[in-house]
Amino acid sequence: MKTYDELMAYQRRTEALAEVAGRLNWDQETQMPEAAAPQRAEEIGAMEEVLHARRTAPELGAALAAIEDDSLDQVGRANMRLIRRQYARTTRVPVDLAAALARLTSRAQGQWAEARAADDFAAFRPVLEELVALKREQAAALADGGDLYDALLDDYEPGASGAQLQEMFDAMRPRLVALRDACLGAAHQPEALSGIFPAQKQMKLARELARSFGYDFKHGRLDKAVHPFSSGSGLDVRITTRTSESDPFNCFYSTIHETGHACYEQNISRAYLLTPLGHGVSMGVHESQSRIYENQLGRSRGFTTWLHRRMQEVFGEMNVSAGGFFGAVNKLHKGYIRTEADEVQYNLHVMLRFDLERQLIAGTLAVADLEEAWNSRFEADFGYEVDKASNGCLQDVHWAVGLFGYFPTYSLGNVYSGCLFKAMEGDLKALEADLEQGDTSRATTWLGERVQRHGGLYEPGELIEKACGFAPEVAPLLEYLEAKFARIYRL
Amino acid sequence: MKTYDELMAYQRRTEALAEVAGRLNWDQETQMPEAAAPQRAEEIGAMEEVLHARRTAPELGAALAAIEDDSLDQVGRANMRLIRRQYARTTRVPVDLAAALARLTSRAQGQWAEARAADDFAAFRPVLEELVALKREQAAALADGGDLYDALLDDYEPGASGAQLQEMFDAMRPRLVALRDACLGAAHQPEALSGIFPAQKQMKLARELARSFGYDFKHGRLDKAVHPFSSGSGLDVRITTRTSESDPFNCFYSTIHETGHACYEQNISRAYLLTPLGHGVSMGVHESQSRIYENQLGRSRGFTTWLHRRMQEVFGEMNVSAGGFFGAVNKLHKGYIRTEADEVQYNLHVMLRFDLERQLIAGTLAVADLEEAWNSRFEADFGYEVDKASNGCLQDVHWAVGLFGYFPTYSLGNVYSGCLFKAMEGDLKALEADLEQGDTSRATTWLGERVQRHGGLYEPGELIEKACGFAPEVAPLLEYLEAKFARIYRL
Repeated sequence: MKTYDELMAYQRRTEALAEVAGRLNWDQETQMPEAAAPQRAEEIGAMEEVLHARRTAPELGAALAAIEDDSLDQVGRANMRLIRRQYARTTRVPVDLAAALARLTSRAQGQWAEARAADDFAAFRPVLEELVALKREQAAALADGGDLYDALLDDYEPGASGAQLQEMFDAMRPRLVALRDACLGAAHQPEALSGIFPAQKQMKLARELARSFGYDFKHGRLDKAVHPFSSGSGLDVRITTRTSESDPFNCFYSTIHETGHACYEQNISRAYLLTPLGHGVSMGVHESQSRIYENQLGRSRGFTTWLHRRMQEVFGEMNVSAGGFFGAVNKLHKGYIRTEADEVQYNLHVMLRFDLERQLIAGTLAVADLEEAWNSRFEADFGYEVDKASNGCLQDVHWAVGLFGYFPTYSLGNVYSGCLFKAMEGDLKALEADLEQGDTSRATTWLGERVQRHGGLYEPGELIEKACGFAPEVAPLLEYLEAKFARIYRL
Repeated sequence: MKTYDELMAYQRRTEALAEVAGRLNWDQETQMPEAAAPQRAEEIGAMEEVLHARRTAPELGAALAAIEDDSLDQVGRANMRLIRRQYARTTRVPVDLAAALARLTSRAQGQWAEARAADDFAAFRPVLEELVALKREQAAALADGGDLYDALLDDYEPGASGAQLQEMFDAMRPRLVALRDACLGAAHQPEALSGIFPAQKQMKLARELARSFGYDFKHGRLDKAVHPFSSGSGLDVRITTRTSESDPFNCFYSTIHETGHACYEQNISRAYLLTPLGHGVSMGVHESQSRIYENQLGRSRGFTTWLHRRMQEVFGEMNVSAGGFFGAVNKLHKGYIRTEADEVQYNLHVMLRFDLERQLIAGTLAVADLEEAWNSRFEADFGYEVDKASNGCLQDVHWAVGLFGYFPTYSLGNVYSGCLFKAMEGDLKALEADLEQGDTSRATTWLGERVQRHGGLYEPGELIEKACGFAPEVAPLLEYLEAKFARIYRL
């Protein structure tokens, strides 16, 4: 393996194998017989061993050292940059540590699920202590003297730093808190949707929603899963959703959210298929797509007007009229759970996790003190007490599977979505009229053109700046939220 | 890798990866989005490359040479025997030839499908010529001076030979032809089932049938596919079926057939999970299980009595009464298609293919002459002319995907099933009374105990002889068929 073409042929095989490994996870969440789990664990372990060997192969390192980037075009240089980054990160972590982490996260996930079901943080604490210790070891291996948290963050948002995210959150917090308080204290409170909405009809409408946001069913499919997700790249990008008969918005907005993720993957230039450029460039940019589909477009005045009409056709008369439906979709509510939070409060949930996980990785917060730290912070931020661990620090799976540094990318995605929507609204006149007809095509085409087709060609911040014509900043998101919720709550 | 335990740990990973590769095929036939095919081909290619590298790895060869079988118990020696056989077969075929065959069969399958749709053998002929040439090359590499056809056969039925199969077919042919002619010429002809049977109800009853034959849904699932198949080993064995609203027997007996294959895999001793012993030992023995479930049990007087009752409950009154239902299920019919043939004529279809493919591999029949050879042979064997290539030599996919030597294992399976049923009837008294209640448990437990649990521990012929208490022979199958069809046709 001496030339760029040989390297890319090797890489293409690795990418194909990674797709296979990803599809095993999809299968596990949607199709796998219940008692097949022990065998599946061995299958996944074997695939990971193959992938790890390919990603750390000495001949790969030799090729990366031998190939001169100067001889390559922009795409070639971007591919080299991404392969080099992955090679460096994978080889820096000792094999034994990587294997220990894989074993531990597999065990920790099971213990987390049990502890959550029992609302018993103490039962999860020992394995989380082991896990934080190993993650700090891994971070030290990756950081090479630099900041530990930043080293972990780099897996999800290349180039981002804890300090920069701290600044972002500091700028957001006071205005979000003020908006939240204003909404919850407003004289006018929107009515909530109530009723029973049959699951089968929800799934049918969910399919229609995915299609209306541009999801290509010839290259994907929609199934049910306990936790909605999008899976796969290139020609095979599958999404899942869930149904609750009393809460159809859960199904519809999960579907639109995952459609955003999936359309990003589906719309990447086919020239990048099974190459490092053939994936969304970072978790933050990925989340910007899922969020703008879900919120700025899906929860807009225009689109909810169309959705109200379609829901009445599908489910019959509802307790909320056309006039109140926009409010019902966007209504703020008290609650403990991040994934169920409204647009205004969502980022407050993320900030809490960001601060705590940074302290865990820095070593300034002990796992033993985590539950108390979470609970007192939650009360300070939200004004009411956490009632049980499953509503508190055991609610998310992330830490149990070793995802430290992942949470802030959710908020970064929201910030990016704010910037993109501002730029989009500047470019596309009278978008609301389209959305009132359930037509998202001008918006999604704009995103496809500006963001999605590029895959991993540009770095995340560079991509958003190119797309928007200005550097990413928090103001557009905050302005959008303030204007939207002032309208709903008549502030 | 120097010890048996190290070798088995390596092999376990290979087996797990092979399960993953197999599940890709299941996904492709049941779940895959239609336009994902080009990417899927690369994913499968990458998996095959990984598997081939592991199966021909020099360290595997060194371990096989270093480990002394004398130090091992019966299971250990059987594992060594199977790993050695696979290593020898895989390493004997030059890498370039193996790769060329993989590419060619992939291309040939597409061309076969097109040619079949157009009823145009000439369109398929050039690629089949290439394929036969490569298969002869492969056979020569495997045969090491021995018979070419036997070398190919060995992949599907270790230890079998063309000469021995020829003898088997020679013994079967005259009695099958006589029985066929007697049935078709009999004064009493059973009535055929007619009517419309909704697909959804068929699938519900198919699920019930699988369960009633012992299929474990906790370790499997039933989906629809164009061509029914069983897929996977160990803890995850999935089956498929199809529905035709005018022909519910197609769905039900495909389901029972695949259930036979799947139960074999599901019932192998768990101690053999992800080892070479953890699979059915040969195609012939596999087919013996699917056939005995489908025919000797599923198409028996007893079981069809139960099925008639259940079908009436599910579909309402039918045109065939309880008394005529056994005849309707087993009715002989003229036809071109092997997979739709009745029990009496099925093996005549196989004989035709066996003779032709043996000549193709021996080089005594040119591909250019294949269609004519097929058609004149068909007319001689069945008494009517082939009307189009899709009803003739283009009907089966086997040759297009390089499966030469596979067809005779279908008949070998029938012969084995005849032996097993004779032995079972000797052991289990009043089995028909069980089957009339839809209770197959004594029969399937007997098969599980005598055949299935052993996996690959014994060689095929040895296994059947142990199970039956006598060496495999054609007489029991022929006697069973003659008695059954004499009863139905009042001969």
